[in-house]
Amino acid sequence: MHRVFSSKICVSGLSLVVGVGVGAAWMGSNAKDDKRHVLRSNRGLLDRVPVIPIPSVDASELIPHQPGQVAMSKSTAAMKYGFPSLANIKTRESYVTSYDPRNRTASWVIEQMSPETLYGQSDRKFCEFKEDESVHVYHRATNADYKGTGFDRGHLAAAANHKWSQKAMDDTFYLSNVAPQNPHMNQNAWNNLEKYCRSLSKHYVNVFVCTGPLYLPRPEPDGKMYVKYQVVGKNNVAVPTHFFKVLILEKPRGEVELRSYVMPNMPIDEKIPLERFLVPIESIERASGLLFVPNIMKRTSALKAITMGA
Amino acid sequence: MHRVFSSKICVSGLSLVVGVGVGAAWMGSNAKDDKRHVLRSNRGLLDRVPVIPIPSVDASELIPHQPGQVAMSKSTAAMKYGFPSLANIKTRESYVTSYDPRNRTASWVIEQMSPETLYGQSDRKFCEFKEDESVHVYHRATNADYKGTGFDRGHLAAAANHKWSQKAMDDTFYLSNVAPQNPHMNQNAWNNLEKYCRSLSKHYVNVFVCTGPLYLPRPEPDGKMYVKYQVVGKNNVAVPTHFFKVLILEKPRGEVELRSYVMPNMPIDEKIPLERFLVPIESIERASGLLFVPNIMKRTSALKAITMGA
Repeated sequence: MHRVFSSKICVSGLSLVVGVGVGAAWMGSNAKDDKRHVLRSNRGLLDRVPVIPIPSVDASELIPHQPGQVAMSKSTAAMKYGFPSLANIKTRESYVTSYDPRNRTASWVIEQMSPETLYGQSDRKFCEFKEDESVHVYHRATNADYKGTGFDRGHLAAAANHKWSQKAMDDTFYLSNVAPQNPHMNQNAWNNLEKYCRSLSKHYVNVFVCTGPLYLPRPEPDGKMYVKYQVVGKNNVAVPTHFFKVLILEKPRGEVELRSYVMPNMPIDEKIPLERFLVPIESIERASGLLFVPNIMKRTSALKAITMGA
Repeated sequence: MHRVFSSKICVSGLSLVVGVGVGAAWMGSNAKDDKRHVLRSNRGLLDRVPVIPIPSVDASELIPHQPGQVAMSKSTAAMKYGFPSLANIKTRESYVTSYDPRNRTASWVIEQMSPETLYGQSDRKFCEFKEDESVHVYHRATNADYKGTGFDRGHLAAAANHKWSQKAMDDTFYLSNVAPQNPHMNQNAWNNLEKYCRSLSKHYVNVFVCTGPLYLPRPEPDGKMYVKYQVVGKNNVAVPTHFFKVLILEKPRGEVELRSYVMPNMPIDEKIPLERFLVPIESIERASGLLFVPNIMKRTSALKAITMGA
């Protein structure tokens, strides 16, 4: 069951410091505490946010406001709610992304989904994973890096979200849109989350999805906190400990709903309902070094964050 | 003893995959191999480098070409050889820096040293470490994060490099110019490297120093490679496994010498000569996700990389 907070933003005092355990209960926030925190910090906090520009193009003109309208599909339209960070931005046919040259994968990828992008003639069998030659050879992942590692080349922007154009689907096969992902997780729980995102395009005016890796600290027996993650291949491609998806969902009359998920990069029991992986957006913002809410608040005065019921 | 390569750039096929062992022999490159590699890849490699802008201001006009000339000191002048990355750039009185909001410390800090910046009336006793309020509160290090951790608040741009102005020295005390550093290393071997950098300003027309953290992978008993680093405090400030300094040294007639050092963030025997910590610049470029050589090559046709003798 979802719990909708009446406060504009759901912020939680919890830090995202938990490791690779399955289950999201550790990040579940208490509604009463959240409200208190909102009352304390509310706009004061947001006013201190460094300015991250949102696109000057008025994306609302490019996006259909009613399902059925044909979109002027441009990946800049996917950026209506701003850039979570400004490093190494690339615009592709189907998404906009920020590359992390130290970890050889994206920091985040934002795509827009609509009934128009989900259906079409493009076919995965024509796609091949490929190096991103716009990334310097020192910082680029290759197919050889993944070979024999036991990890899938896990899409961040999913191929199946972009059937509308073969080029758009092809672009999701750049290794800069990929990270090493546990095969069981990729093919089951994560795949279910991707399907769920697609299903939402039937129920909302617009669906924006931001996906990225996390490298979360966890306590070790010495009582200290450590970030630890494997790197694979000659190019030391980082294996994220977790992945996030932030869903920005537009309703009629400009209301925006926010659903943010974190899944550990390990086998996950498919029976666990997806809402168990809902986390407060603040947890993702703290752990990733990215910001979402300040940008979204520039575009709407009615933001509802949906988190797991207590 | 230093060994000066006649090739324009010293590139090495080695990846920087070694852990927290003291001693730089593990990254020492073989001169013959380096030359072969240069012959193979040479300009072809550089031509494929993504363009990173260098400042449009002609920094050479701001910088004294002879020791003794008074510099029009502007921190933009420190950027003559370009930006190693373009994320979250901040310009301060004494340095230019790029912030890493995920790890709560800088990715790099570049400063310029000259006899004019090294001497003056400013005094460390008037300085206090302070939060960088230009960083969002979710991604900002605080003094409390360091308290009781056993780590020093280690300057990246050193305070003693900026005696020319109290404001310039004050600015080095932002916690965004600081990382958790082993006290023995900070106060001995690293301090010696900082002193050495200052001494070079007597012998070169211009001295540019870029300093930053590294998070290097190392093998574990399971045969796989892992990046592992501690995080401290409520804000999970990352403790780098190593630190780098890249020295860009201008000689008369536009020649540029490059010296790049890596030191592990642990106690280091002071008897080990500094040149033992020289590494090929490629190692730092690969491990940090930053690029130096492509930018420098836009400013000079005579680059000599100085590495440790074989």
